[in-house]
Amino acid sequence: MSAGWFRRRFLPGDSLPAPRPPGPRASPVPYRRPRFLRGSGSSPGAADASRRPDSRPVRSPARGRSLPWNAGYAEIINAEKSEFNEDQAACGKLCIRRCEFGAEEDQEWLTLCPEEFLTGHYWALFDGHGGPAAAIVAANTLHSCLRRQLEAVVEGLVATQPPMHLSGRCVCPSDPQFVEEKGIRAEDLVIGALESAFQECDDVIGRELEASSQVGGCTALVAVSLQGKLYVANAGDSRAILVRRDEVRLLSSEFTPETERQRIQQLAFVYPELLAGEFTRLEFPRRLKGDDLGQKVLFRDHHMSGWSYKRVEKSDLKYPLIHGQGRQARLLGTLAVSRGLGDHQLRVLDTNIQLKPFLLSVPQVTVLDVDQLELQEEDVVVMATDGLWDVLSNEQVAWLVRSFLPGNQEDPHRFSELAKMLIHSTQGKKDGPTGEGQVSYDDVSVFVIPLHGQGQGSSGH
Amino acid sequence: MSAGWFRRRFLPGDSLPAPRPPGPRASPVPYRRPRFLRGSGSSPGAADASRRPDSRPVRSPARGRSLPWNAGYAEIINAEKSEFNEDQAACGKLCIRRCEFGAEEDQEWLTLCPEEFLTGHYWALFDGHGGPAAAIVAANTLHSCLRRQLEAVVEGLVATQPPMHLSGRCVCPSDPQFVEEKGIRAEDLVIGALESAFQECDDVIGRELEASSQVGGCTALVAVSLQGKLYVANAGDSRAILVRRDEVRLLSSEFTPETERQRIQQLAFVYPELLAGEFTRLEFPRRLKGDDLGQKVLFRDHHMSGWSYKRVEKSDLKYPLIHGQGRQARLLGTLAVSRGLGDHQLRVLDTNIQLKPFLLSVPQVTVLDVDQLELQEEDVVVMATDGLWDVLSNEQVAWLVRSFLPGNQEDPHRFSELAKMLIHSTQGKKDGPTGEGQVSYDDVSVFVIPLHGQGQGSSGH
Repeated sequence: MSAGWFRRRFLPGDSLPAPRPPGPRASPVPYRRPRFLRGSGSSPGAADASRRPDSRPVRSPARGRSLPWNAGYAEIINAEKSEFNEDQAACGKLCIRRCEFGAEEDQEWLTLCPEEFLTGHYWALFDGHGGPAAAIVAANTLHSCLRRQLEAVVEGLVATQPPMHLSGRCVCPSDPQFVEEKGIRAEDLVIGALESAFQECDDVIGRELEASSQVGGCTALVAVSLQGKLYVANAGDSRAILVRRDEVRLLSSEFTPETERQRIQQLAFVYPELLAGEFTRLEFPRRLKGDDLGQKVLFRDHHMSGWSYKRVEKSDLKYPLIHGQGRQARLLGTLAVSRGLGDHQLRVLDTNIQLKPFLLSVPQVTVLDVDQLELQEEDVVVMATDGLWDVLSNEQVAWLVRSFLPGNQEDPHRFSELAKMLIHSTQGKKDGPTGEGQVSYDDVSVFVIPLHGQGQGSSGH
Repeated sequence: MSAGWFRRRFLPGDSLPAPRPPGPRASPVPYRRPRFLRGSGSSPGAADASRRPDSRPVRSPARGRSLPWNAGYAEIINAEKSEFNEDQAACGKLCIRRCEFGAEEDQEWLTLCPEEFLTGHYWALFDGHGGPAAAIVAANTLHSCLRRQLEAVVEGLVATQPPMHLSGRCVCPSDPQFVEEKGIRAEDLVIGALESAFQECDDVIGRELEASSQVGGCTALVAVSLQGKLYVANAGDSRAILVRRDEVRLLSSEFTPETERQRIQQLAFVYPELLAGEFTRLEFPRRLKGDDLGQKVLFRDHHMSGWSYKRVEKSDLKYPLIHGQGRQARLLGTLAVSRGLGDHQLRVLDTNIQLKPFLLSVPQVTVLDVDQLELQEEDVVVMATDGLWDVLSNEQVAWLVRSFLPGNQEDPHRFSELAKMLIHSTQGKKDGPTGEGQVSYDDVSVFVIPLHGQGQGSSGH
């Protein structure tokens, strides 16, 4: 990726990419629910025409079908917001094969040992918008991108310290010292692989959706276990937390127009043509109007964490690049998230203004050193799309986890039961700590991943 | 500031600013030591030709001259690194006058009540490079910029909540609610004022040094007390810490080519012409050479927190945008800091490649709610330039503070004595926790600011 690419792609005045040669149009990405829900009995598909908050079914895997680490899963479709459930999920074993150099160093890698070499596990949630297609492609694709990215660096992963040269060749005798000084560890290669895999998957979504004339985007939240560590990669507004007896720890943070305000304003500062004269990059407490002209009002620009006052000019009356607060905050009046996959074609309604330049597909990655935790039976990671977190706080979820698990130790399906119970708690039930019975009308999907017995040394791995 | 400005200023191909009209050249900024050192007895000036680590004098204010809050100060000149001590310091009372609107809303503010309205205090350290001029101008100027910026928003500062309109006029009845929803507090206006003051001071330095044909830049670390809070604003690699009996808390973080790698690489990605084909924006564990060509080596680009491998191409052999580790890390092979003031004319040696586009003058601001601390007699803030922190850790400084203060409660000059003792500890003395006796050959300047009795309600304020 080069800056030239960015300019050609997004900025007016440069030559447009050559039009695709006419050819057979690919068929649309078919709608589906996660593969591991097959045989779970309830209806597979699109919205029930008469669905109401209290009649929508909560779905979870069929009893007898176990997910990696005996994780639990449950989901509910939104209340008439869209025809389809735009959330998607995937999980499975991640088999990293060992590759070795062929005789010629400059030839492509050869897979000499097709059997697996490193084994990990993978759980992922995708929250789609503008249609289900991007989330479906992501659920079908991201794990393969990640496997490829990890296989490309596997020699570095299994070394005590990643070598300067992947081949292990030592061009400079102090190479290990240079790597040591930079503090590069095997986990940095997994983080790098996750970052690259998200971008590769984003490219795949762009190509597949263009080919089938579909649109849409999705957030992505991924947990990967590898070599005794749990990596949580997040691009969007889903969330993962670690719940233990005495601890609630955030494993991700959300990327929204509000949390990424400075990055987004900075880009509009550098490339004002991205706003096409229709938006102002400045932030004000509310949208300004004619009566504000000439007044000094509160504002923030890209370089500011604090606030100041500026005298209102006519250009300040334009629609703001980022507008609204909290759940209502929107990028270019259009999108509630600032990172994710897809949205290659998304434009502001009735304009040619593109959203994609402002979106990052790169995730933020948090590493949990599972082997270093003194794990208890009830220690779990809860991953869920924003539909859950909009109505339940981290502490409420932790309370529900701690209330449920101790009394259900014998039930092999307890983690899916817990996931279902969490979803029921978003549907206005009056019990538990959510006394007011708040209702989520959004799609909600939840993984509950138990950590106990899953350290590198344990047999569960 | 607009992006157009950035492009005109830094990018080739656009028209250059009109040359300054010929006129009388301003006289050079005269070298001096901080004003509050006057009468302190030791020699005022430039380096002693024969100075050795153990013979350089440690200077502090004359006994009888008290700094705000009875703060202590001490400094030592570097060991033959430069002719002058490139550190500078300033402190004083900050008198914010109240301004009120005149009859015409669009006319300039009128100062109706010249007497002071809000009182604060100010301590600042500037660590110069490339000559002492920028640090001297900053020490002469920044407090005035800050006073002006605070006076421009003082009506908002003293309100329960900053009003949407500085005039207090209410154009929209729910304005207070909009401000409330954004969570804007009076302290955000102080942060905004600090951010603007640093930029204004940077502009002054640019103009003054251009007019007098001088060069150079400096870091800036500022502590400001106002309305019961202590604001610490930092641009560069100086550091402030809070030392209490049971706590050491960082009040600033350092901005260097390493800590700001992603921001700097991102800019080079967006504007590759800033590197003029002479540098690579990619990070490698060491500089690559011909033997690495075609190999897959560890690298990081702007969007990566993790590491990956790439096959080395010829362009990767260029000098890296950021090179070296720790103290040796340099931006464009030239500068060890990535934020600060000045350096408007700085170019990579023997090239036309400018450093300034990569430098931010905006500080990061930390707020310490002094009124919320249960202060003890020995609670102090230690602010120092990097010369101190290069050889003493935060914990070593805390140990020295806690060892010194309890036995010296009766000495009214104890905080300057402590500052002197901290500097002596950087000069290879064998006592204390720095057993090895590390020596700092850099300029070192230290403020020790006692907090006890300085809360908003106390008489010391």
